[in-house]
Amino acid sequence: MNIQEIIAKKRDKQELTKEEINFFITEYTNNNIADYQASALIMAIYLNGMSKEETVNLTLAMANSGDILDLSELGIVVDKHSTGGVGDKVTLILAPIIASLGVPVAKMSGRGLGYTGGTIDKLESIPGYKINISEEEFIKNVKKIGISLIGQTMNLAPADKKIYALRDATSTTESIPLIASSIMSKKIAAGASKIVLDVTYGSGAFMKTKDKAQELANEMIEIGKMAGRETVAIITPMEEPLGRNVGNTLEVIEAVEALKGNIAEDVKNVVLELGSNMLKLAGKGNNLEENESKMLENISNGKALEKFKELVANQGGDVSYIEDTNKFEKAKYILPVILENQKGTVKELKAEEIGKLSVFLGGGRIRKEDKIDSAVGITLNKKVGDKVEKSDIVAYIHSNDEEKGKEAVQRLKKIYIIK
Amino acid sequence: MNIQEIIAKKRDKQELTKEEINFFITEYTNNNIADYQASALIMAIYLNGMSKEETVNLTLAMANSGDILDLSELGIVVDKHSTGGVGDKVTLILAPIIASLGVPVAKMSGRGLGYTGGTIDKLESIPGYKINISEEEFIKNVKKIGISLIGQTMNLAPADKKIYALRDATSTTESIPLIASSIMSKKIAAGASKIVLDVTYGSGAFMKTKDKAQELANEMIEIGKMAGRETVAIITPMEEPLGRNVGNTLEVIEAVEALKGNIAEDVKNVVLELGSNMLKLAGKGNNLEENESKMLENISNGKALEKFKELVANQGGDVSYIEDTNKFEKAKYILPVILENQKGTVKELKAEEIGKLSVFLGGGRIRKEDKIDSAVGITLNKKVGDKVEKSDIVAYIHSNDEEKGKEAVQRLKKIYIIK
Repeated sequence: MNIQEIIAKKRDKQELTKEEINFFITEYTNNNIADYQASALIMAIYLNGMSKEETVNLTLAMANSGDILDLSELGIVVDKHSTGGVGDKVTLILAPIIASLGVPVAKMSGRGLGYTGGTIDKLESIPGYKINISEEEFIKNVKKIGISLIGQTMNLAPADKKIYALRDATSTTESIPLIASSIMSKKIAAGASKIVLDVTYGSGAFMKTKDKAQELANEMIEIGKMAGRETVAIITPMEEPLGRNVGNTLEVIEAVEALKGNIAEDVKNVVLELGSNMLKLAGKGNNLEENESKMLENISNGKALEKFKELVANQGGDVSYIEDTNKFEKAKYILPVILENQKGTVKELKAEEIGKLSVFLGGGRIRKEDKIDSAVGITLNKKVGDKVEKSDIVAYIHSNDEEKGKEAVQRLKKIYIIK
Repeated sequence: MNIQEIIAKKRDKQELTKEEINFFITEYTNNNIADYQASALIMAIYLNGMSKEETVNLTLAMANSGDILDLSELGIVVDKHSTGGVGDKVTLILAPIIASLGVPVAKMSGRGLGYTGGTIDKLESIPGYKINISEEEFIKNVKKIGISLIGQTMNLAPADKKIYALRDATSTTESIPLIASSIMSKKIAAGASKIVLDVTYGSGAFMKTKDKAQELANEMIEIGKMAGRETVAIITPMEEPLGRNVGNTLEVIEAVEALKGNIAEDVKNVVLELGSNMLKLAGKGNNLEENESKMLENISNGKALEKFKELVANQGGDVSYIEDTNKFEKAKYILPVILENQKGTVKELKAEEIGKLSVFLGGGRIRKEDKIDSAVGITLNKKVGDKVEKSDIVAYIHSNDEEKGKEAVQRLKKIYIIK
């Protein structure tokens, strides 16, 4: 078996065998296949596609390319994954609710890159919160309090990391089998026994249309089935940002407010839809509406917020910040945004543009090694469908640099489309 | 402009502009574009094709990536190129004939790689023949005696060299726009004002069918037209080896014999067809039949052989070897091949297999850095269509290793298909 023959097969639209896919992934991970050979194969996959079986084999090969987290002693672990969004603080709200209902949450999350944020960056904005802990401590935490949210400390799916970097540099990101196998390989390596997916579409998402999102969802459900990991997917629009805030500290505060019951409608819908399915997969009830009620109840009775505090405390974080979110350091400049001479209804507020604005303010990364500023971001008072009067403050820019802040105000005014 | 955008355009079947192609070639030659990005683009070109205009722009960009030989002071220089074959000693015969008819021949040739031979390796088997001379000396030689045949000493089309190596490692060789631009870029960089092409097809050639060879020929003719280099192509079968010998010294001897009038029919046809077109392009007569007669005349009257001797002497070679080809060192073992118990007609004698047998004997290279043995090779007494009696010696194996020689005899017996 050699890589030239494998490339030639895919080039000629033939199906690759499990052995060929395993050979590619193993040898590429071990640097016995050159990047230029891998990228030629990836382009051929992009253009000629992959069968369901090939995609499953690719997923499993990538999952097996590094460590596999063994969470079996925790029982059924339901993992949740979103294909990316702007203002997406769902995990921060959903995870403690689910844990408060007795479903173990053992979740590794990623950092933000480009215009989308990352759960880990948000958690790190809580003083003291440790995102790098050992595998043993991680499992111990879940056993103790039913929840642990950490960064990806282990060598999970290294083949996926290599291929992902290559795809970024060779314009081969938007391929359904490649996206699906990338996501699912990481979930499988991270020990999930069941998976709930939030597949986003629109200006702020990988998939630009609902149809494409559905296609990606179906592919991942299929992979989950064939890989023995029951998978459910919901499809969520990501045309505008999710919730009221974009920025790390701002989103933690919004999440704490949500756990107190003060939750934006769009965030609530996603949290309930994902959560009710997670409860179902965990064997906590087949009726999704009833599951939603249980979740709302644990918000009302304070149990979900209590679980979040327990999580923060257990990870070394300072719970007093959660008890009084005014303690979080604020940005130096909080600048109101007023759309002079415009009144009507917000028609468009592109998530991608807001995400880029947050990066501009220092709240996100362009390159992996960039540092981020937790305090900066954008608060959106008015979102799509909201009525706007001439004097309304539609949003606030939170900036630690006056000039940048002023520029961001001007940019945000153009992002609001009123009709 | 950036390479990701260029890759994405070709990935999406869009036409690349001249500026984009120039950007790719310039930056790749200067190592500012990574091999893995180039290979992704090459695979996208392989699968999505290129328009005629793109192919011309690619050709010119590659030609301009290094030195361009200026042969303008020599007048019209007609270059000849073959897309490769086994036993192809055509240049050794054709070049002196053409030069003897007053058309300047200033030709750089390549070495053999894989199962196809190279003119330069054959010339080097003549003791003393210098294939590496300066550009000035090269032009001076042509001015003095009308002919010089040398190796590729200059930095001609370095982009093509890089891309060629990449294609070999990524299974993207058999692409018509990529083959056409590769060949034509080298010819243009080597200073040709007009070009005659021998496009081969069959088991011993890149193109396996006549239709594909015609398609490649048309593409190169079109490139030549658009690049202002009038180009003519002939299509030649390469199912069995060309002529009677495969191996470096053996082919030089066969070429000398041909120049004395003892020329195999298939070799004669190719030489005359190419030569008559070269004479036409050089303005020496529009009637191809008349041109062929002139060529045959210069074989009969000894002028062509005289020109070959002049060439050898002028390049520092020992002419006494040409005057008496028995002086060439022979292989230690010259083993007859007899097909016991088989009589009938030779139906098949695959060029590719004979080429590989020559490499096995040490007459060719697998890797660029391999040394070759000039004396070894195969003499074919019987070729396709010839009648074979049980006791006939159908061929001789020339080997410097007894065991290898014996094995080659057995292998050659299987290559001969008699019916």
